[in-house]
Amino acid sequence: MNIAEKVRKIAVDARQASLAMARLSSGTKNSMLLKMASALEAGVGQLIIENQKDLEAGRLKGLSGAMLDRLMLDEKRIGAIANALREVAALPDPVGEVTKMWKRPNELMVGKMRIPLGVIGIIYESRPNVTADAAALCLKAGNAVILRGGSEAIHSNLAIAALLQSVLRELAIPEAALSLIPFTEREGVLEMLKQEESIDLIIPRGGESLIRFVVENSRIPVIKHYKGVCHVFVDKSADFDKAELIIANSKVQRPGVCNSLETLLIHKEVADEFIPRIATALSALNVELRGDEVFCRLAPQAVPASEEDWHAEYLELILACRVVDDIDAAIDHINRYCSLHTESIITSDYGRAQRFIREVNSSCVMVNASTRFSDGGELGLGAEIGISTTKLHSFGPMGLEDLTTTKFIVYGDGQVRG
Amino acid sequence: MNIAEKVRKIAVDARQASLAMARLSSGTKNSMLLKMASALEAGVGQLIIENQKDLEAGRLKGLSGAMLDRLMLDEKRIGAIANALREVAALPDPVGEVTKMWKRPNELMVGKMRIPLGVIGIIYESRPNVTADAAALCLKAGNAVILRGGSEAIHSNLAIAALLQSVLRELAIPEAALSLIPFTEREGVLEMLKQEESIDLIIPRGGESLIRFVVENSRIPVIKHYKGVCHVFVDKSADFDKAELIIANSKVQRPGVCNSLETLLIHKEVADEFIPRIATALSALNVELRGDEVFCRLAPQAVPASEEDWHAEYLELILACRVVDDIDAAIDHINRYCSLHTESIITSDYGRAQRFIREVNSSCVMVNASTRFSDGGELGLGAEIGISTTKLHSFGPMGLEDLTTTKFIVYGDGQVRG
Repeated sequence: MNIAEKVRKIAVDARQASLAMARLSSGTKNSMLLKMASALEAGVGQLIIENQKDLEAGRLKGLSGAMLDRLMLDEKRIGAIANALREVAALPDPVGEVTKMWKRPNELMVGKMRIPLGVIGIIYESRPNVTADAAALCLKAGNAVILRGGSEAIHSNLAIAALLQSVLRELAIPEAALSLIPFTEREGVLEMLKQEESIDLIIPRGGESLIRFVVENSRIPVIKHYKGVCHVFVDKSADFDKAELIIANSKVQRPGVCNSLETLLIHKEVADEFIPRIATALSALNVELRGDEVFCRLAPQAVPASEEDWHAEYLELILACRVVDDIDAAIDHINRYCSLHTESIITSDYGRAQRFIREVNSSCVMVNASTRFSDGGELGLGAEIGISTTKLHSFGPMGLEDLTTTKFIVYGDGQVRG
Repeated sequence: MNIAEKVRKIAVDARQASLAMARLSSGTKNSMLLKMASALEAGVGQLIIENQKDLEAGRLKGLSGAMLDRLMLDEKRIGAIANALREVAALPDPVGEVTKMWKRPNELMVGKMRIPLGVIGIIYESRPNVTADAAALCLKAGNAVILRGGSEAIHSNLAIAALLQSVLRELAIPEAALSLIPFTEREGVLEMLKQEESIDLIIPRGGESLIRFVVENSRIPVIKHYKGVCHVFVDKSADFDKAELIIANSKVQRPGVCNSLETLLIHKEVADEFIPRIATALSALNVELRGDEVFCRLAPQAVPASEEDWHAEYLELILACRVVDDIDAAIDHINRYCSLHTESIITSDYGRAQRFIREVNSSCVMVNASTRFSDGGELGLGAEIGISTTKLHSFGPMGLEDLTTTKFIVYGDGQVRG
């Protein structure tokens, strides 16, 4: 078989295995995940040997120190991966939940029940922990999963997948419920993206170029997010102490991630009082400020912002700052420039808090809270498989429920249609 | 502007209008729909004149009598279209519903709120009523809508759209909230399918070739269903009276639609008793029976079924019939041949009813009820925008809620991430 044929076989086998996965009890799925955690810990020696091959190849290829660090597995990291599997085992099983049920005038009981999506493909880059993390979430939600990791981590990924598959064999679950595409050629991923008869959903995890490649080549639905241009709007009624804490936290707590703050909007009526204060605080935290004219006048350390700055996802200690006339202007700015990720208003005014919540249609809209809370774990989803800034199927951070769909269930007693 | 440029402008304007649509109150949306109903009734004369042009062109083109009938508008049909708009006005508004809300350990209140999808494209064939029906559902759910109807109905569709748009103008709602692609060239629809920056969802309504064309050419997510190969399984514990009623209703009440019965499965332990009875009943209703060996032996009027019959969506008075060993064999047959549409078990056994509900993962799974209930109106969704047999976003009959998504809303009091 050539690469394309092998990938097609993996997909067809995964579809078949998904039927068995969908029928597994929560207890079986949980003990599967706990055994997988133990298998990874027991396989530490083997995993480190395989990981060394990737690190060696990476060094020869001239990967940066940061890239090599992401790739590296040691006993501590493998322990953390195993514990992440145990955490997924502890989450409630979404499958079988009846999300609502109602009675029709003809006494039919009609409900909606959560079921697995079927087969999920995960396409990701260098971190080998994704192999276990993403697989665990897909399997817990009763799906089969096809993994396609980055070529730099191929030995590590194959070793992790082999340990996880050994547990499937032990429990007599079809092994094709978890497969890893064993080829690093681009042909493999292209063929995977054509298997719309067998794969229900593709989730790409990685940089923008990976995601664009997947979107452009996939016949299968893709859930994705490109970037996070998150806003905080300081309303005229804001509590300045809270505003300062939230802005600083949103910007500097971890600037390199998609839920960090990129643009600050300030109500003109509090500009005089608040801008010097926040500018001083942010400068002390080494944040470079790029402001509109009013902002720069009130914060001499700021440099003038250009149109590009309103679009920018800096992912570093830079903040675009703009003074707006009122909440309407703030919402207009957000609608125009945001990436539908996360926006927060700082206000003491009930009406404007409610308006912001209603009228800003990003995937996560907040009042008086740090944008850094826009995360599956922080919002209470248990674990995060990814984040969606497109509105179909899921919008915002995605947890186990987002790896399911609902079917209609109908309990009758002989009803026919008149 | 050429066709492509005009289509792009329609899409960009619709995106802009969708921001205004998302903010409309339920009251405004409802009075808009009621005014649209009145506008259609007031415009009957004009609509009939425009419709005559389509009928004339259709006759010249040699359209069949059935096709011409589908195309035809008269006062009664226009009245029905207007009343359908009034029914949509009377439905509850899904936008703004908080589907759940929970508290985090740090006291953040986190919820999910329904919001419109944004811009929805509807691509459909000859029935001009879709122009009003589909538009009404999209608008009620707070979306902008772009309609692209069949070329045979272009004059009728343009006239309906113009009447609906006159109401938008009257209410100072941006007119681009509802547009109809005014070109019949294929280039127009191809360009529409490329506007992934402006259009959030495409719903094709029509025959399989239309749907395949849309799926193959769209960069925008498509919700679709190709066909309905629906099953009824008569368990060994079935009440035969109910079974006969349900099978007859599922097959003959309206055989030409996707939720009608196409394959009957019968538990072998009741084959001797039930098959002669159901065969006689169905023959009396002019249903042609195609059976496996056992079925044909017990029902001499049946002809032998081939492998193709298990895949067939007949849409006429033909039924494929098979005897199975047990519920496992029934579920296996369904998993192999079904189109994920609708399946029903006839049983008096509690355990097998629950197993069927849990283990058959079609979009609508029933116990002791006619497959013909698999319909948005019959299931209680109010109205149906379409049906999905793919699992992403929606699965099964789709109502107003399926034209929305949910965003996360977070009420805080100064929380920051540690």
